[in-house]
Amino acid sequence: MAERLVYQGKILSLVLEDERWEIVRHKDAVAVLAVREGQLLLVEQYRPAIKQTTLELPAGLIEPGESAHEAARRELMEEAGFDAELRELFSFYSSPGFTDERITLFEARRLFPRSRPQDPGEAVRVRWTPVEEAIRAFLAGELATSSPTAAGLLWLLKER
Amino acid sequence: MAERLVYQGKILSLVLEDERWEIVRHKDAVAVLAVREGQLLLVEQYRPAIKQTTLELPAGLIEPGESAHEAARRELMEEAGFDAELRELFSFYSSPGFTDERITLFEARRLFPRSRPQDPGEAVRVRWTPVEEAIRAFLAGELATSSPTAAGLLWLLKER
Repeated sequence: MAERLVYQGKILSLVLEDERWEIVRHKDAVAVLAVREGQLLLVEQYRPAIKQTTLELPAGLIEPGESAHEAARRELMEEAGFDAELRELFSFYSSPGFTDERITLFEARRLFPRSRPQDPGEAVRVRWTPVEEAIRAFLAGELATSSPTAAGLLWLLKER
Repeated sequence: MAERLVYQGKILSLVLEDERWEIVRHKDAVAVLAVREGQLLLVEQYRPAIKQTTLELPAGLIEPGESAHEAARRELMEEAGFDAELRELFSFYSSPGFTDERITLFEARRLFPRSRPQDPGEAVRVRWTPVEEAIRAFLAGELATSSPTAAGLLWLLKER
């Protein structure tokens, strides 16, 4: 298998395998499903890739040296200002036809408020949303959201 | 917003927005959830991007001029040799932090066997799998699979 590096970026690289397969190498990612008193923790943020504001589970990339569990705790802290006891739920490849990105979903069992570190690179707003409303909006096609959020909402659907 | 095209390929292109955001433009995709007599229609195929064989729902890209519904019918025919009555379930962005790919999941209500067109570009094997076994393997972390497959399995989980 001959691989040719076409582009090396900050968060991804693009390689051509056998001059045929266009493959995006990307860090693995984590997302956190956190429910408190019937409200789901979602974050709102503008996503340049789709030119839209999304509502998603807190999520982010696993940095070098970090475990998936550590990355999930860090992202939950940075994006929402909570620490938590986390349980790993499941993993999937976001789109294995062209990228190696693998996403692992965690469930937050207990949430502990913490002071949120400032990260000027991320402009996210916390939006606690009733679980029922989030599921309804998703199934009605009203929610611009990510694959781990879809999976998290469907995970919650089984408990209705 | 200044956009610079870094690479134009066959199935994707890479752009830099404001010399900062690395964005992969990708066709939208569809996947089909088909269950018959307690068996889930999965396809096994080697995925160069992750150097692994996956078990996934039949899936593929929406070609120019096609609706999502038409693409789902075509992929089901090409990958598994079935036509079907399809119902749209929901959509999500596979990974909106870096790509605009949006995936729509369809549920097959009635399946009609058809002769499968030959497509030498796709080497997929149909694997009818008991729904319970597919869900178990997914939740146990034993299934290398895609985000629409994860979503489809979780959709089925609610009916157990």
